[in-house]
Amino acid sequence: MKRLKRNERIAAFVKIICDEPNKIFSLNYFSELFGAAKSTVSEDIVIARRVMEQLNLGIIETIPGAAGGVRYRGITSAAENIKFLNMLVEKLTEPERIITGGFLYMADIIYDPSIAHRAGKVLASCFNRKDIHYVLTLETKGIPIALMTARAMGIPLVIARRDNRVTEGSAVNINYLSGSTGRIQTMSLSKRAIRKGAGVLIIDDFMKAGGTARGLINLVKEFEAKVEGIGVLITTTNPREKLVDNFIPLLYLEEVDEKNRNTVIYPNSRLTG
Amino acid sequence: MKRLKRNERIAAFVKIICDEPNKIFSLNYFSELFGAAKSTVSEDIVIARRVMEQLNLGIIETIPGAAGGVRYRGITSAAENIKFLNMLVEKLTEPERIITGGFLYMADIIYDPSIAHRAGKVLASCFNRKDIHYVLTLETKGIPIALMTARAMGIPLVIARRDNRVTEGSAVNINYLSGSTGRIQTMSLSKRAIRKGAGVLIIDDFMKAGGTARGLINLVKEFEAKVEGIGVLITTTNPREKLVDNFIPLLYLEEVDEKNRNTVIYPNSRLTG
Repeated sequence: MKRLKRNERIAAFVKIICDEPNKIFSLNYFSELFGAAKSTVSEDIVIARRVMEQLNLGIIETIPGAAGGVRYRGITSAAENIKFLNMLVEKLTEPERIITGGFLYMADIIYDPSIAHRAGKVLASCFNRKDIHYVLTLETKGIPIALMTARAMGIPLVIARRDNRVTEGSAVNINYLSGSTGRIQTMSLSKRAIRKGAGVLIIDDFMKAGGTARGLINLVKEFEAKVEGIGVLITTTNPREKLVDNFIPLLYLEEVDEKNRNTVIYPNSRLTG
Repeated sequence: MKRLKRNERIAAFVKIICDEPNKIFSLNYFSELFGAAKSTVSEDIVIARRVMEQLNLGIIETIPGAAGGVRYRGITSAAENIKFLNMLVEKLTEPERIITGGFLYMADIIYDPSIAHRAGKVLASCFNRKDIHYVLTLETKGIPIALMTARAMGIPLVIARRDNRVTEGSAVNINYLSGSTGRIQTMSLSKRAIRKGAGVLIIDDFMKAGGTARGLINLVKEFEAKVEGIGVLITTTNPREKLVDNFIPLLYLEEVDEKNRNTVIYPNSRLTG
């Protein structure tokens, strides 16, 4: 291979490291890939880190020691959060989204890969801790955002199913009370999915009463694992009392006025302050 | 803002453009962001493009004309496909994955954000055409790979549900014959999800007889849209005759021998040749 110039090494370095958020790459890896001395690679990293910070594109961290190296973390800034959440508010308040029963059509938003990616980065920034080993969601609508959160954190995604599937082997099933419908429902998760003692982050698209989140917490307990956080894209302001405490929503939904075609939704000020 | 050097501009350029695959950014965007002349930005792009190609990290394309600009496409090489698909084969043939009934436990693989991302890039490379406007999947297991395919192509993801949900407004429901179970099932998709005349790429994790894919084709017809391709992570070699033609699998599953704890699975040679 032709020897790379500094310009070229930095371009490749940024691409490779941002493609696997939170993964630690050794300096040796880049030193061999580029055919350059480790000291040269270190200088490249300093340049890349400085510009990423300056332009709010995330953080490049150097981890010292034998197992050390360098990794990328997609931390979002308050300024970026404001821009993103205001864009979501604008989309979600479009009058034509209101459907019979006072629901909001939002499949096109929550399944949009670019929006899910950005929401995942914001949620990952909120829960950026070492003791979280899995992101957990209940099928279906929360999956894109949960997947992108897991990707930004560099950890696996686990999906609980609404019924038991033969293709997932022996499973833990629990019943939970859906707070919004008042009905008892079942969720199921393969016994292999979560290891004992692990830390779990619950992610979902929407929370009303919190029944699903409460059910997921009970499910995690069955695995002798620990819920370390709960994040949702949208929560309703009513009911004020939820079945779970300590969750972080990106947006608050206050009202969907079907008659006047008016929706009141606003960003979580903790993320934009 | 402090004026950026070439090194720094290239680092930021690569990060920004790779974060939104297939999105066309104008030269003006970078020229303003960096406070640099368009000719300078063009020179930066040439350097970034050359190294991306040299290291097989994807393609940076310049689109001429008034609506033109520059975009990133995550095309994968045969060499990269071989490495990735062999890694999948190695994981999928682990004897402990075989569960009662001759099924393979693969939730941890298909929900892994990094694997879904790489599978999505390979599938996006297979169907890299302008006439595809949506990626469509049926819930649940195909969602992570379908989302990552849509992200790599820079287009929306659409998820058909197994039943009709009040929160998605009026919907098109169709019945389909699940070829593997022999049972009639229902799938449902909001009328707003796909626009008339659009091109649709169907993505799923697994194909046995092809009943789900056949159902999704019929669903797309109801929207007066057109199926432009079908891609799956894994297809079984048996039955040889599927209910659909012209699909691209990444892997062929020939046998799961429950008694001898042996699985035969191999990459699609069209992708590795």
